[in-house]
Amino acid sequence: MARAPRRLSPGATIGILGGGQLGRMLALAAADLGLRTHVYCPDPDSPAFEVTRRISIAEYDDEDALDRFAREADVITYEFENVPSATVAFLRPRRPVMPGENALDIAQDRRKEKTFLRGLGIAVAPFRPVRRLADIAPALKETGLPAVLKTRRLGYDGKGQYILREASEARAAWQAVGEATSVLEAFVPFTREISIVAARGADGRFAAYDPPENLHRDQILRRSRVPARISADLAAQAESIGRKIANALGYVGVLAVELFVVGEDSDEQLIANEIAPRVHNSGHWTMDACRVSQFEQHIRAIAGWPLGPTARNADAVMDNLIGADVETWPTLLAEPNAAVHLYGKRQTHPGRKMGHVTRLSPLSKGG
Amino acid sequence: MARAPRRLSPGATIGILGGGQLGRMLALAAADLGLRTHVYCPDPDSPAFEVTRRISIAEYDDEDALDRFAREADVITYEFENVPSATVAFLRPRRPVMPGENALDIAQDRRKEKTFLRGLGIAVAPFRPVRRLADIAPALKETGLPAVLKTRRLGYDGKGQYILREASEARAAWQAVGEATSVLEAFVPFTREISIVAARGADGRFAAYDPPENLHRDQILRRSRVPARISADLAAQAESIGRKIANALGYVGVLAVELFVVGEDSDEQLIANEIAPRVHNSGHWTMDACRVSQFEQHIRAIAGWPLGPTARNADAVMDNLIGADVETWPTLLAEPNAAVHLYGKRQTHPGRKMGHVTRLSPLSKGG
Repeated sequence: MARAPRRLSPGATIGILGGGQLGRMLALAAADLGLRTHVYCPDPDSPAFEVTRRISIAEYDDEDALDRFAREADVITYEFENVPSATVAFLRPRRPVMPGENALDIAQDRRKEKTFLRGLGIAVAPFRPVRRLADIAPALKETGLPAVLKTRRLGYDGKGQYILREASEARAAWQAVGEATSVLEAFVPFTREISIVAARGADGRFAAYDPPENLHRDQILRRSRVPARISADLAAQAESIGRKIANALGYVGVLAVELFVVGEDSDEQLIANEIAPRVHNSGHWTMDACRVSQFEQHIRAIAGWPLGPTARNADAVMDNLIGADVETWPTLLAEPNAAVHLYGKRQTHPGRKMGHVTRLSPLSKGG
Repeated sequence: MARAPRRLSPGATIGILGGGQLGRMLALAAADLGLRTHVYCPDPDSPAFEVTRRISIAEYDDEDALDRFAREADVITYEFENVPSATVAFLRPRRPVMPGENALDIAQDRRKEKTFLRGLGIAVAPFRPVRRLADIAPALKETGLPAVLKTRRLGYDGKGQYILREASEARAAWQAVGEATSVLEAFVPFTREISIVAARGADGRFAAYDPPENLHRDQILRRSRVPARISADLAAQAESIGRKIANALGYVGVLAVELFVVGEDSDEQLIANEIAPRVHNSGHWTMDACRVSQFEQHIRAIAGWPLGPTARNADAVMDNLIGADVETWPTLLAEPNAAVHLYGKRQTHPGRKMGHVTRLSPLSKGG
């Protein structure tokens, strides 16, 4: 049962489910506003634990720990969309969980997500549900080739995905997704990837950042740059998509929508890929190029506080420091226009996001 | 025994003596660079405790606690200059304490401080030591009236000060400073107050922020604004004073020097008031108007990392939120050009610094 949003006072406590770098940056932003945080995560080495006094090291089904966590928090939020629904169901009668139930419900299920988007008149790639291996061949007739098989639930950073270039790969794809209920999507021949990172306040106000242009490699975000190389009209369309989604969900907090740009010039159009009901890697540049970062914005929204301005005061290129990339930190720190953010993770693994660097340059015209 | 500066790696731990808002903002800046912190403070309600996982609630003479603190830290710093010298003497053989011994030694003793400044050719107000009541009358002959009696040690925010407007106030002044060894200073008829906030790196590099113009009320800083309404020449002199002091002390970290401007126009000159061997309230605007704040700069310096740029990208007016001022937070949060920073203090007292707000405007020419 969602409660009516109310305004927290400084000194109130934000409960954060998940202890990764997003939780860490949320906690740091909350601190700057005089709010306390309590971070809940099963991993004792969680980087977000380093930046707060109150932590729970517990599994997401530990009801005693969840109950203590809820009693200490005034509002609960999360840094990842795959919070088990049973966890949220347990917490929700105890404390407001924001963003709300329907946002999580949709973001956790690719089929619901695409149906929801299509229902709002937002273009999505053709897709078909896949429940068994035998569903793939007929689905390919709808989507064409190449196509992407994605698990219906629990996919992120390209995990649980397989790109089919030929129909004969059906079995390999089915095995790659662990024979889990899936969705087969047409592969979108995009010219660019962008995203919209925006917030909706408890008062219904909506505020979007400029859409970044994103570059993925091995299905992990490597770089986001603003302005994106798109027309002002397309940027406005992206914002409109974010607004429609946020309003339809009665959303409170920051959300991101990944969008594909297809076509060129006047034929450009946007196809929605997925919704992240949380702060997003493609919004990290806001920490250095905007007065109010996506992290502060999310905290303001869930605290029932007014949203801050989203105007950009610089052009920016944000690069993730993935795995051994982080070893360049001494060079990066010496660059005068680079803002370096390190996540304090103890172990460097290939593919692990260890930090990011945002390079700033004077605001360009247009964009 | 000071050890040679060395370069910390991300993941290293900065020990911070003192748990107030300066320690808190240092800890937040360290976290953004992937460094851990351990905050040591006797007050269990210290605001800096809220933003780190490692805390020591212990007195400054608790050798067991200090020993544990030192063992967990890679370098130790402090947020206030009145750290007991016995505490530093205990810690120094165990871990590097930065800024170094001579900076603390001078900053803790007004007489040494003024002698040091004068020795560097930096103008200070005429002063005389006062050890007993009977010293005041002859000292007034040197300083003239009005004059300020200040305790030699442990003064901040105007505590331990008395302004004499007539010689007959000698006894009242002596009682007001608790009959402690003091310094009588000529009252400086300043036209403005400014400060220089600057850093010296472990490599000897020096970098100053633009000098803010400061407004005190009841001997507490209320407002800092950049640019100060001073000539470019005077700003360069202020920077030069900071550089001389930092170099003479072999300083590593951020320091501030409070300066009086006397005279007008071409007769303007600077008189040094006092040195703060730490981040400083008059540098808070750097959090929002510079790429690298004074807090990040201090952490970079003591970590043996390169200093960051100090250029300003906006004009700024920083107002402290003192006591009940903080109750205006909802209005401040709704101001589009205001960056609000709250310290998370549980109790509001008159005169207590509860937060600050920096209002930004486009960079003006000159300054």
